Amino acid sequence: MSQKKIPTYENLGVSSQKEDVHSALKNIDKGLFPGAFCKVIEDIALDKNYCSILHADGAGTKSTLAYMMYRETNDVSYFKGIVQDSVIMNLDDIMCVGKPTAILLSNTIGRNKKIISGEIIAKIIQSYEKYIEELRERGIPIYTGGGETADVGDLVRTLIVDSTLITRMKREDVINPQTIREGDVIVGLSSFGKAKYENAEYNSGIGSNGLTLARHGLLKHKYYDKYPECFAPEIDKELVFFGKYDLNDKVPNTPLSVGEAILSPTRTYAPILMEIFKDDYSEIHAIFHNTGGGQTKCSKFGHKIHYIKDNLFTVPTIFSMIQESSQIPWEEMYRVFNMGNLLEIVCSEEYAKNKIIPIASKFSVDARIIGYCKSNLQNENQLTITSPQGKFKY
Amino acid sequence: MSQKKIPTYENLGVSSQKEDVHSALKNIDKGLFPGAFCKVIEDIALDKNYCSILHADGAGTKSTLAYMMYRETNDVSYFKGIVQDSVIMNLDDIMCVGKPTAILLSNTIGRNKKIISGEIIAKIIQSYEKYIEELRERGIPIYTGGGETADVGDLVRTLIVDSTLITRMKREDVINPQTIREGDVIVGLSSFGKAKYENAEYNSGIGSNGLTLARHGLLKHKYYDKYPECFAPEIDKELVFFGKYDLNDKVPNTPLSVGEAILSPTRTYAPILMEIFKDDYSEIHAIFHNTGGGQTKCSKFGHKIHYIKDNLFTVPTIFSMIQESSQIPWEEMYRVFNMGNLLEIVCSEEYAKNKIIPIASKFSVDARIIGYCKSNLQNENQLTITSPQGKFKY
Repeated sequence: MSQKKIPTYENLGVSSQKEDVHSALKNIDKGLFPGAFCKVIEDIALDKNYCSILHADGAGTKSTLAYMMYRETNDVSYFKGIVQDSVIMNLDDIMCVGKPTAILLSNTIGRNKKIISGEIIAKIIQSYEKYIEELRERGIPIYTGGGETADVGDLVRTLIVDSTLITRMKREDVINPQTIREGDVIVGLSSFGKAKYENAEYNSGIGSNGLTLARHGLLKHKYYDKYPECFAPEIDKELVFFGKYDLNDKVPNTPLSVGEAILSPTRTYAPILMEIFKDDYSEIHAIFHNTGGGQTKCSKFGHKIHYIKDNLFTVPTIFSMIQESSQIPWEEMYRVFNMGNLLEIVCSEEYAKNKIIPIASKFSVDARIIGYCKSNLQNENQLTITSPQGKFKY
Repeated sequence: MSQKKIPTYENLGVSSQKEDVHSALKNIDKGLFPGAFCKVIEDIALDKNYCSILHADGAGTKSTLAYMMYRETNDVSYFKGIVQDSVIMNLDDIMCVGKPTAILLSNTIGRNKKIISGEIIAKIIQSYEKYIEELRERGIPIYTGGGETADVGDLVRTLIVDSTLITRMKREDVINPQTIREGDVIVGLSSFGKAKYENAEYNSGIGSNGLTLARHGLLKHKYYDKYPECFAPEIDKELVFFGKYDLNDKVPNTPLSVGEAILSPTRTYAPILMEIFKDDYSEIHAIFHNTGGGQTKCSKFGHKIHYIKDNLFTVPTIFSMIQESSQIPWEEMYRVFNMGNLLEIVCSEEYAKNKIIPIASKFSVDARIIGYCKSNLQNENQLTITSPQGKFKY
């Protein structure tokens, strides 16, 4: 009898830590502020008091799920959220570095024209314009600069939606995680529920990370035959859609179906951060957007810091469902997903209590001190997560 | 007996004119200079004398051919040219608008990790750094600002390599094709041979457009079974690799194999344009980069102009081979490919003869007057191509 394949992220063709990519990047120039959350480069306008940040990312494999929901319902509006994902994966990364001046955005859409119609492309392009306008109305100085839609069916099974953002920032406004020190607390901002600025009734908290694992780990194998265009044929067949759920099954304690829950558009924290950035924010030592690497993201930043997280949010239902359906070890769950807080702010306890938590609360986003930082003399960085599911060291 | 499928670009899942995309874009803001070659927007540094251009595009399906050549030879260096394609599809578009100040670049690489190794990603990332440095040494003020590599095997069959560029430009330096007038000539700059600034021995002239048609129309059906990861399964089987050639077959009168010829990296004209832009260039009324739409690109620009091209370069061998192997009508060939001149400059005959042609010649790039412009009172724009293969009206 053949051994059962272990459903790790690696076996699904995704590396949560991207070791080989980081190794390819190790000799590349680190920019003006090595150790900042994004690469910071010389100002495009050549002003020595300013710097620029150029950032590219996208909705990842979430678009293939939007496609499945569209096929199930014939409703193109499922592609709207993908646009938000593609924008926020960039915007919130940039804002981890500090207060942006004007932000420009462009997008690249690659489609298999035999599958993705002009109607879908129109929906996506219109959603970009609409969402950017919405962000602007909420005080984010963001503008669109065009984009490119390419018919590349020989490359793309369904649809890929990427965005690139650029902003300028005052150099003195850059947040440098190298300033994290013993005694700093970690404030977590929740990724689930309903923020004041969110249109949808409820956000599952899923974000845009770990979607390959979420899809295959949650959904039933019946989708293997139904949507052969929605997975890499190189994955072991038994790891393709190996979960327990139908797209229409309900997620307990939420108004969402399983399909809707994993399509919940990534929450942005930009309105909250813009409010915080209105005053001097030099007491903030770091902001982390917990995308690739999930709850372990922080450990790539700072200098000889031991991050201790012992007061995380109760894990939102969607993540418990993924774990239970896929039997992925909890240690790996924390490495792949945001697990309930997609943004972390590192600062003094006082600043957390007097400034960050009250401002987040104004926007109906739960925020709490989820942990703290200690000096770590022996290793470069370390992370210990203490959770109801166990104690994990990274 | 079933009717033989006609091998049009449309049947291969690519629209050379992108009608549905243009229709989706028709209500989108056209920017500061409607009718310019790229969308021009408010300056990111908010200076009213300047404007910004943000531009996204990529190597398209050319990357799947680099993958095939790599698989045939185990040589990762085939991915180098893809980087040049991905950069030049943006850089030369931007330079059609005028003289750039600093240019920043970022990239998005989407890969199927089960197929595309870390070694390939490293090659691509290093090639970006190297090529940008090379451009800088040739006087192009371009800098890298980072990028993103995503493991998205459920979306991408092999590899997609896109780039985004941003630049600032003086508003008074913007070239506006609305200024094209009767009597202007069209100077064509050749896309084949060996420019002084090119490393490869010989450039086939293929560029980065029409690659889906080039691959399927040239290559033998034996690759259908060998590389199922290199085409959309939704294409009619008989249109997949329906040509006459092996990747190793030689292209007559060149040092290139068929595989190498369709992988020839897109020629850039940036060094030539930077030289032209050193002096006042207000006599240039338009510059066209003949990518999507091939030789018909010009007809989307200008106001009531009849473009007459009656002195084009002899069609480079690679295009004749594609036509002969695929039996695509010549009219469609001109609509898909650059057919020998990838860049066109519209100006007075005198300026063409005294300035553009001599400067191009200094860089060993053939340039000649390939046609002229007439006022066209009846229709918006019109294009007539008179060639040894026939007279075509668009």
